[in-house]
Amino acid sequence: MTAGTAKELKVRHLDPKKRQGLVVVITGDGKGKTTSALGMALRACGHDMRVGIVQFMKGDMYAGEWDGVKKIEGDIELLATGMGFVGLGGNSFSFEEHREAAQKALELVRARMAEKRYDLLILDEINNALKLGLLDLDQVLSLLSARPFELHLVLTGRDADPAVMEIADTVSEVREIKHAFRRKIEPQPGIDY
Amino acid sequence: MTAGTAKELKVRHLDPKKRQGLVVVITGDGKGKTTSALGMALRACGHDMRVGIVQFMKGDMYAGEWDGVKKIEGDIELLATGMGFVGLGGNSFSFEEHREAAQKALELVRARMAEKRYDLLILDEINNALKLGLLDLDQVLSLLSARPFELHLVLTGRDADPAVMEIADTVSEVREIKHAFRRKIEPQPGIDY
Repeated sequence: MTAGTAKELKVRHLDPKKRQGLVVVITGDGKGKTTSALGMALRACGHDMRVGIVQFMKGDMYAGEWDGVKKIEGDIELLATGMGFVGLGGNSFSFEEHREAAQKALELVRARMAEKRYDLLILDEINNALKLGLLDLDQVLSLLSARPFELHLVLTGRDADPAVMEIADTVSEVREIKHAFRRKIEPQPGIDY
Repeated sequence: MTAGTAKELKVRHLDPKKRQGLVVVITGDGKGKTTSALGMALRACGHDMRVGIVQFMKGDMYAGEWDGVKKIEGDIELLATGMGFVGLGGNSFSFEEHREAAQKALELVRARMAEKRYDLLILDEINNALKLGLLDLDQVLSLLSARPFELHLVLTGRDADPAVMEIADTVSEVREIKHAFRRKIEPQPGIDY
C-alpha cells in the first residue's frame, strides 16, 4: 500500500470515548450484502480484531471469499455451515436437511459467542435462513439479546425480519438498480462470487 | 477456514464461458459502499486476481482498510490519493488542492489502466469527487470508455452521475434505513472505519 500524498497530510485517528458492540443489518435485493460484510471483516483485521464469519446458506458453490479469507494474516475464521440455497437449481438437499444445517450453525454461533471468541461476528445470509424457516424468529432474537456488550454483530441477507431491524443499531438496504445478469452476462469471478 | 459440512457436500464451481470486465457502481446514502468494494477486493484476491484500490477522497483520516489490505498475501495495492472530504470538519485544504489531488489520482488510474496492471480496479468515492467538481464528467466517461475489455471497474460513492450509471453493467444503491450515528453512538472501529 502506498499513500499518494501522505507527506503533505497529517493522518487523524478517530478514537471513540465509548467502545460498544453494534448490531448491523444489511438487507435488500441488490448486489453487495455479503460483500459488504467481507469488507468489514477485512477492516476489522486491520484493527487486529478477532473475526468470525458464519455462512448460513453457502457451502455447495465455490465462493472467492473462501480463498480470500485464507490469505489474510489475521484472526479470521470462516465457517461455511450451510448446504446451499434452498430450491436453487442443482441443490438436492431437502428442507429438513437445510434446517438441520442451519440449526447446527446457530448452536455453533451460540457457543462461540458465549466463549467471547470474536470481536466481530458476521451471520451471513441469516436473514434468508430465517425467512425460509430454517431458523425461528425467537431463536434469532434470543441470540441477539445474548450478545456480549462489546461484540459487533452483522446480519446479512434479503428480507430481514422487521423485529430484527428494530433491535439493530444500523440498517442498510442494498437495492438493485440494474444487474449484469439481467442482460444475460454470466456471473464473473471477482465480482459475482 | 473450516467448512462445517464439507464432507457431505460436493462443492460446485461456476466457470463462465465468456470472461468479461464489468462496470459496477455502488451508490446511495447508506453504510456499506466502500466496504462492499473492499469485500470484492478480498474475493478477487481469492481468485488470484490483481487488485487496485484508488481512494479519491480518503487520506487524512485513518481507515482500518489501510492495515487490513497490508495483511492480505496477494497482489493488492491501495492508494489513498485524496486529501480527505471537502468541507468536512478538521479538513483544512482548499477546493483547488482537493481538485489537484483528484486530478493526479485520475492520471495515475489512466496510467495503471493503460499498463493493464490490474484485473479489478476500485475507484473509491469517485462519484463524490465527480459530484463535487474535483473531476469532470467527460474525464470519467473517457476513462470508462478506455478500460480494457477484461478489467472489472468498481465506482463507489453517493450521488453517482446518471451518465455513469447508464454505462454500468451493475448498479446497487445502498439506502440508509437507520444508523447508530443518529442515536449519538460514536463511530466504532471495525464497523465505521
